[in-house]
Amino acid sequence: MASMDDVFARYEKRLAVLEKSNNPFTKGIAWVEGELVPLAEARIPLKDQGFMHSDLTYDVPSVWDGRFFRLDDHMTRLEVSCAKMRMKLPLPREEVKDILVDMVAKSGIKDAFVELIITRGLKGVRGHTPGEEFKNNLYMFIEPYVWVMDPDVQRTGGSAVVARTVRRIPPGAVDPTVKNLQWGDLTRGLFEAADRGATYPFLTDGDANLTEGSGFNVLLVKDGIIYTPDRGVLHGVTRKSVFDVARAWGIEGGKLGPITKKIWDGYWALHYDPKYSFEISYAVVNGTLSNGTGKAAQGILQNGAATLG
Amino acid sequence: MASMDDVFARYEKRLAVLEKSNNPFTKGIAWVEGELVPLAEARIPLKDQGFMHSDLTYDVPSVWDGRFFRLDDHMTRLEVSCAKMRMKLPLPREEVKDILVDMVAKSGIKDAFVELIITRGLKGVRGHTPGEEFKNNLYMFIEPYVWVMDPDVQRTGGSAVVARTVRRIPPGAVDPTVKNLQWGDLTRGLFEAADRGATYPFLTDGDANLTEGSGFNVLLVKDGIIYTPDRGVLHGVTRKSVFDVARAWGIEGGKLGPITKKIWDGYWALHYDPKYSFEISYAVVNGTLSNGTGKAAQGILQNGAATLG
Repeated sequence: MASMDDVFARYEKRLAVLEKSNNPFTKGIAWVEGELVPLAEARIPLKDQGFMHSDLTYDVPSVWDGRFFRLDDHMTRLEVSCAKMRMKLPLPREEVKDILVDMVAKSGIKDAFVELIITRGLKGVRGHTPGEEFKNNLYMFIEPYVWVMDPDVQRTGGSAVVARTVRRIPPGAVDPTVKNLQWGDLTRGLFEAADRGATYPFLTDGDANLTEGSGFNVLLVKDGIIYTPDRGVLHGVTRKSVFDVARAWGIEGGKLGPITKKIWDGYWALHYDPKYSFEISYAVVNGTLSNGTGKAAQGILQNGAATLG
Repeated sequence: MASMDDVFARYEKRLAVLEKSNNPFTKGIAWVEGELVPLAEARIPLKDQGFMHSDLTYDVPSVWDGRFFRLDDHMTRLEVSCAKMRMKLPLPREEVKDILVDMVAKSGIKDAFVELIITRGLKGVRGHTPGEEFKNNLYMFIEPYVWVMDPDVQRTGGSAVVARTVRRIPPGAVDPTVKNLQWGDLTRGLFEAADRGATYPFLTDGDANLTEGSGFNVLLVKDGIIYTPDRGVLHGVTRKSVFDVARAWGIEGGKLGPITKKIWDGYWALHYDPKYSFEISYAVVNGTLSNGTGKAAQGILQNGAATLG
């Protein structure tokens, strides 16, 4: 199993290759209404209810070293979230997965942040006639891996505060198990953290229980035992991975340092485990692409990961 | 002072004129990055933080019978909301007002729903370097008047429920005095109301206090006195108008029916009061406009309201 140094060294090598690429999708690719466009050019209708009332759910799978990680876990959670919101994935799950794999391959991005957003569509719930069908919209994009904590900071640990000017939106108002983008409380928390010279806000529920932070779950190690809030939080897939690694290692005792290290190494090892990830066939991009008009770049598809030309 | 019947009869006449117009902006006009486009064609960047994290504030002034109503009250609230969110109106207030007046005039819409949205911009708060400036984005659109309660229903009264499956997001999580589009709780309330055969959800704060509903404040008349929640709600401009009318009429006693009627009549009379509204000069649109490309229609500006050709 690779250590933190190895994992980051290999990642940085892949990133250097990506940054030299002339593929127009290197900085990101988006799928909007069936069209592939460079992410920076992607636009959505102003009147989409995802913008008009943040009436949406989303999920963020990832690609690591050319392998899709726990994609089915993310797709399952997304479908459950949609059902809770009385929405539907507008395309069959397998078709969505195929499109995502194709997008990653076309982008040449080996370590990717992948986002799928499903919105209510152009018609809102207010003024809606019961029984009338909604046409939900799907937006997807892929960009180079986004770190919640930069690799350099991970070596030593980041700085967090327990927010005292804001509390997490309670489950009785907005269900946090439905991944959502109503970040009003988390944004306030980010500002408070920065004001207090820190990076990460941990929000309480207002009754002195920890919940979660701005895009991450909170896990604590105390006397060799891992603790994490169960209520008022998203059931994160990374959190689940921590449980899987801990279970595999039989972790119940030990000290903070070694436990975090074991979990960390085990987490990245999962990314090569066919049980949790599958490899993507990348397109070989030949020469400079003059096509920057938003149409998908053409390339030769090969089996297995290929380096970019 | 006009009665409800008069107010609606005149409105319906204006609406009939609007519906016959061949102005390309009759169904709505949007201002996006300095361009005027028909509302249905307006698009925003997918990566705008207004969509990505609902990191925005907004306001909704209105136009009634060719007069902008309490525009400065809305602009003031919007600026206060921006300040609370550490954002800024990207253009001077007077310039924004001029653009709005121009948009209404070009659209020919005499009774309009007007929305201004200010978003964090393309860069998010997460990962932001303290001190680094944000470039906030402004989006504006105008469309024919949107009724929270249809005129026909206003004659008899709508059906509401006090929601029991959802509570309002508390001020300690998201400040409701900053008008926001994080409608997760309100959307749940709308579904609950529909499931229970009603139209409007009134949300409590979870501690048996009424707060507000899906886009409206709640006011009650009991024993001749008007009551409305003060905490955990938006300080609505319509709510403020109710206070102004009540004060002018010295309302403290009376019965529910006559009080509601007096407030209603007074509310619409305010729309013709230069203290609260100002008249818009409409463009006279000559003949059929072939220009449907999203550029602003040309017309001759006149002083005073003009009927459409």
